[in-house]
Amino acid sequence: MLKNTIWIGILTWIIVDLLIELKEDKIMVSWKNLDTLDSFKTLENASKVTVKEVMAGENGANRVKNYNVAMAAGLNYNYAAKAVDDEILADLQALADEAELTDKFAELYNGAVINTGEKRLVLHQLCRGQLGNDVVADGINKRDFYVTQQNNIADFVNKVHNGEITNAAGEKFTTAVQIGIGGSDLGPRAIYLALENWARKTGNFKMEAKFISNVDPDDAAAVLASIDVAHSIFVLVSKSGTTLETLTNESFVKDAITKAGLNPSNHMIAVTSETSPLAKSSDYLAAFFMDDYIGGRFSSSSAVGGAILSLAFGPKVFADFLAGAAAEDKLATNKDIKKNPALLDALIGVYERNVLGMPATAVLPYSQALSRFPAHLQQADMESNGKSVNRFGEPISYVTGPIIYGEPGTNGQHSFYQLLHQGTDIVPLQFIGFKKSQCGVDVDIQGSTSQQKLCANVAAQIVAFACGKDDENNNKKFEGNRPSSIIIGEELDPQSMGAILSHFENKIMFQGFIWNVNSFDQEGVQLGKVLAKKVLAHETDGALKVYSDLLGI
Amino acid sequence: MLKNTIWIGILTWIIVDLLIELKEDKIMVSWKNLDTLDSFKTLENASKVTVKEVMAGENGANRVKNYNVAMAAGLNYNYAAKAVDDEILADLQALADEAELTDKFAELYNGAVINTGEKRLVLHQLCRGQLGNDVVADGINKRDFYVTQQNNIADFVNKVHNGEITNAAGEKFTTAVQIGIGGSDLGPRAIYLALENWARKTGNFKMEAKFISNVDPDDAAAVLASIDVAHSIFVLVSKSGTTLETLTNESFVKDAITKAGLNPSNHMIAVTSETSPLAKSSDYLAAFFMDDYIGGRFSSSSAVGGAILSLAFGPKVFADFLAGAAAEDKLATNKDIKKNPALLDALIGVYERNVLGMPATAVLPYSQALSRFPAHLQQADMESNGKSVNRFGEPISYVTGPIIYGEPGTNGQHSFYQLLHQGTDIVPLQFIGFKKSQCGVDVDIQGSTSQQKLCANVAAQIVAFACGKDDENNNKKFEGNRPSSIIIGEELDPQSMGAILSHFENKIMFQGFIWNVNSFDQEGVQLGKVLAKKVLAHETDGALKVYSDLLGI
Repeated sequence: MLKNTIWIGILTWIIVDLLIELKEDKIMVSWKNLDTLDSFKTLENASKVTVKEVMAGENGANRVKNYNVAMAAGLNYNYAAKAVDDEILADLQALADEAELTDKFAELYNGAVINTGEKRLVLHQLCRGQLGNDVVADGINKRDFYVTQQNNIADFVNKVHNGEITNAAGEKFTTAVQIGIGGSDLGPRAIYLALENWARKTGNFKMEAKFISNVDPDDAAAVLASIDVAHSIFVLVSKSGTTLETLTNESFVKDAITKAGLNPSNHMIAVTSETSPLAKSSDYLAAFFMDDYIGGRFSSSSAVGGAILSLAFGPKVFADFLAGAAAEDKLATNKDIKKNPALLDALIGVYERNVLGMPATAVLPYSQALSRFPAHLQQADMESNGKSVNRFGEPISYVTGPIIYGEPGTNGQHSFYQLLHQGTDIVPLQFIGFKKSQCGVDVDIQGSTSQQKLCANVAAQIVAFACGKDDENNNKKFEGNRPSSIIIGEELDPQSMGAILSHFENKIMFQGFIWNVNSFDQEGVQLGKVLAKKVLAHETDGALKVYSDLLGI
Repeated sequence: MLKNTIWIGILTWIIVDLLIELKEDKIMVSWKNLDTLDSFKTLENASKVTVKEVMAGENGANRVKNYNVAMAAGLNYNYAAKAVDDEILADLQALADEAELTDKFAELYNGAVINTGEKRLVLHQLCRGQLGNDVVADGINKRDFYVTQQNNIADFVNKVHNGEITNAAGEKFTTAVQIGIGGSDLGPRAIYLALENWARKTGNFKMEAKFISNVDPDDAAAVLASIDVAHSIFVLVSKSGTTLETLTNESFVKDAITKAGLNPSNHMIAVTSETSPLAKSSDYLAAFFMDDYIGGRFSSSSAVGGAILSLAFGPKVFADFLAGAAAEDKLATNKDIKKNPALLDALIGVYERNVLGMPATAVLPYSQALSRFPAHLQQADMESNGKSVNRFGEPISYVTGPIIYGEPGTNGQHSFYQLLHQGTDIVPLQFIGFKKSQCGVDVDIQGSTSQQKLCANVAAQIVAFACGKDDENNNKKFEGNRPSSIIIGEELDPQSMGAILSHFENKIMFQGFIWNVNSFDQEGVQLGKVLAKKVLAHETDGALKVYSDLLGI
């Protein structure tokens, strides 16, 4: 009897331990292809919604009031003009549940190896806050690690701003120049431009920032010609410390600093991983660290965005940006799609792509400050979900990531909107708008301010795209039924910028989960690199040799 | 007998006169939908080309050598990596012939009413040279008209540059600011950026140019904060003189000039049509004219580009730009598609869109100076051919203009190229590359210059996209078969910039002819304008009213 009790005790202990281990190994969720899910089949068979019909009259007014989800930082995600109704929303909820989307997000933020291709954790959200369990990797608590880097950057930046760290002549630095490409360029650049005018208006503007990215020598040459090198601090950003473009541009810049009679090591800091060749170099005033768990395109919240944005606007502004993102991340944990804007946006996007067959999405911010945000989303989205194999490396038989592009409104209205309104393909639209301008300078012309005109235009466009207009002349007819959603905010500031960034990062993550792809590697960029090296080594034949000849290499 | 002879004489005279009139009325070509053409059916049934196969080995090398068309200004259009072979090229030639594409171009440049929707001639090519007969409209010779405007601009600009025309204090203007949107912004801005570094290097840089376009008040506020208003000359550009954004920004700027204690009329010139409210206003130092036969998106060659580019770089540079475009226009008159790069490019694009079913085209210049050229082409192409009715207003049953987007390489390689290489949709690619950089400043790192690295990368990408790479790991596999073409030049300078612009403008024109759409109107932009006015007048109900409320209008 005692023996049995002991055996049962041991057995129970083993089972409990195994269950814990299962949970810890994050194999409690199952990763399945989209086309194997029952809920997807239901969704495919659901009655389609005619946007033009549902957006008409009082029903349309009610949709705009009700199809709205509160986001962080006072933002709202409004999806009234999307081709969904309560039945399709229920089907999308069922898809979210069957695909275990928020459970997968929990796996991710609790530290599972979500990036299976590269066998890495995915921790960009952890830079902005602790959503779940402590994440320990490489023997350290990663949240502590990221906070330490933020603090180190803040200490350094404060010394730059108050004149403790200066150039060799003891003069303050006035310009910060980021040297980086891809994720080390697009996100930080887009956010810098997004907040520059806000910072100038609110007294948070500390230093001008510039960016050098392209290996085209004219990029570095033009930036260097536009700045005062003696008063510039350069931020060299490369996770691996081996990025061709970035190292080339570093040499380019060092050359210019040296030619100006200065010592490059007094003008440069590095943002890299602790294991990179740059990490312990004496070539830099300081080094700040990211790690392999931060993908380049998701690195704006890490030291990659932190150093340059803190130099430009001060550490407090960067902290506010992270706080906005963290608050939005929290919303993304909610299982209810009507309370989780990123999840809902992701699901509607998949519905448009895989059921309605739409090949692209246009991102249309009605804010000049967001002029480069579509280019950043273009990378974040297309590099993450432009894949043809699932996370196990098996070919999939459905379409994945769409083409993402866009320009600010109202500019786009005078450009490519013609095709959006009357072209033969339907392109879903993602509008972004704010009630207030950033600079606060405005004029009243014909009874309205420029800001009112801007907002009137985005409201008008949503309805024009959705409802169209009949006309006897086919050339002046608008079919309507062009779906769109809009994120509306009070003002573009650090918090709302952070929340908007988080929204799209998490949307992309959820879509990757739905398509069952690994959104966190980018094997598609490798082949070009390999072949370019061959060209430079003159180890080519066939077509590549002739192209090289034509290009004078 | 005499009577008969007289009658025959009269009859002959009548017939000859009628024939001449027929020719003059430009009704000798017939406008047919693409899907009614026999040659299109042949093309649809032609054996498809597998790019990966034909680009391999020695055959691939020969294709790169042979599938090449000389352009103007030392450029070459190379289409070796397109999904065509000699049979498909013959089919494309047959399509060009049956659709009478170069005859239609001749109609256009000889002054036919090609823009049927708005009942207008299409004369942007005439700004750069006389291709056919004299074109007389509104009682004047239009070539003379455009040349006169160029000369007037040159006279004015020379006086600005040599200090004959100054601000009220007698000081030289140092900055020129274009106020315009859409075609009055994107083209001139893209070309300014394309030539800025070249001009600085070659001693042709006269004044910095800035651009205000968006009705977002933060756009004008930020530009005004970045310049010295007292030494700035503003170029107000609106063909109609009624563009909401432009007139609003004019008031915004006038407000700033007045607040600086200056008289706006000493700081502004206008580019408009002679019939617009701006034409004879005393509010401007001078007015230069375009007319209704210049579409906004094709207006870079007119006074719209002429004033700002001449101010920035001098009239000679603008003349060289026009000369490059004119030389390229001449090539576009050739019936032989192998000698007419714009025509060939157009035909291949239609083949990709309507036979191979590809929804988009990416424009990828390996030149940082062309950073905004894709945005200009996005307008030029999508606004021209994003149509669903033919030129007679009849619905058509085939797809027309694709989505156009792009960013410079190598930046894009670290961004959206992942999807281009391994995504589920195939996107045809338009590369542009130059052997020489503009600034001429470069560094040699690891045995190659930055310019060589840049060129090596574009060569490598073409082959990577075309040929792919097999791998046991599906995640590292590249299917290849991604078609591309490349325009290769010596250097980006005024002539080559003009030739490149002409190439794409004419490609768009030919594609419009093939799809049988009117590429020269833009009815799709009207509805949004009408609804925006209603919002501002608070004359809304339903969904539009609720959106307006949410946006705080």
